[in-house]
Amino acid sequence: MQIGVLGTGNVGQALGTRLAKLGHHVRMGSRTKDNANASKWARKAGKRASHGTFADAAEFGEVLFNCTAGSTSLAALQAVPAAAFEGKILVDVANPLDFSHGLPPTLSVCNTDSLGEQIQRALPNARVVKALNTMNNSVMVHPEQLSDQHDVFVCGDDADAKATVRGILNEFGWPDEQIHDLGGIASARAQEMLLPLWLQVLNELGHPNFNLRVVT
Amino acid sequence: MQIGVLGTGNVGQALGTRLAKLGHHVRMGSRTKDNANASKWARKAGKRASHGTFADAAEFGEVLFNCTAGSTSLAALQAVPAAAFEGKILVDVANPLDFSHGLPPTLSVCNTDSLGEQIQRALPNARVVKALNTMNNSVMVHPEQLSDQHDVFVCGDDADAKATVRGILNEFGWPDEQIHDLGGIASARAQEMLLPLWLQVLNELGHPNFNLRVVT
Repeated sequence: MQIGVLGTGNVGQALGTRLAKLGHHVRMGSRTKDNANASKWARKAGKRASHGTFADAAEFGEVLFNCTAGSTSLAALQAVPAAAFEGKILVDVANPLDFSHGLPPTLSVCNTDSLGEQIQRALPNARVVKALNTMNNSVMVHPEQLSDQHDVFVCGDDADAKATVRGILNEFGWPDEQIHDLGGIASARAQEMLLPLWLQVLNELGHPNFNLRVVT
Repeated sequence: MQIGVLGTGNVGQALGTRLAKLGHHVRMGSRTKDNANASKWARKAGKRASHGTFADAAEFGEVLFNCTAGSTSLAALQAVPAAAFEGKILVDVANPLDFSHGLPPTLSVCNTDSLGEQIQRALPNARVVKALNTMNNSVMVHPEQLSDQHDVFVCGDDADAKATVRGILNEFGWPDEQIHDLGGIASARAQEMLLPLWLQVLNELGHPNFNLRVVT
């Protein structure tokens, strides 16, 4: 599959590297064509990896991952010509963290709206799936590293898009029974509002190598 | 121990019944002295159970549980003479759910404040511990009913109060390793902001007999 990764930080690099290793062709996008992180990543990630602008990555991918910082996601995505998103699956991994009031960060949007919904409204021709935002990037792509079963949440308005994302999650190592479909994109509120708890548990444990599981 | 349970709904009844069975003396409080739920509960719950007004229950208990609906908690607690809370441990189990905009409910306070913090500010002489608000009442008092280990979160500004609450949780069946201390009362934000996810998982599973676990 051709996949565009928008964002050059730890999340984008972890997803891009794993996707390329799995055999996908991955183009990492950033604001500028010559981003140092992206070009270094592309050299390391091998022959299926390339990099360019956000627009280059969006045009290249059948499936796109939004790995930009939540505070800049809307601006980054809206800087790309809308036609590049036509019919595309956009996996929104970002969290709308607001560090302007100090630590721990608050959310810049929550409760009655979410970043996932804002992105879907801004890009009505894309099929937005919120996923993987509730854990550290290392856990996203190698779920087998934890000591026991744990879960990932997905939501979005397009069932086919969610099925494709489920397939990619399966490739990462998430079996179907650990993937919780929470319904339409409005459930991005629930997924993003987990972040304050995640940050407190990070503080309690002193490391980010954990995740939540729904026990029945 | 003498325990006051404020609120006569499912949560108050589940906690009151379990606490009385464990040997504690429990007084359930409500707005009126002759609340039908409370008197029926007290008859069923046995000789260690009694009922009265919110003030009666608050004066009676060394440890108090706030089991009122989140939307009415502040009014209910502030109707009690402040002296009744002097030095008392107040376990806040409520969630600030706002049903006025339809389903699923939103939160009436979140992100930069929480019901737990509002209660602590309103009752500065009480020692507020947020706990148990992240699960169904049946799971609170019988954690052994689920298929595997799962966790409870606590926070509060007073370490002794948290230690006492930990002891009660142990009695309910929560071993120490399943009790996550998230720090000061400001972490009530994190615990309460779990509710939207809880409600979506309830919707996905079709029943409330589940809980979250932190997997490392």
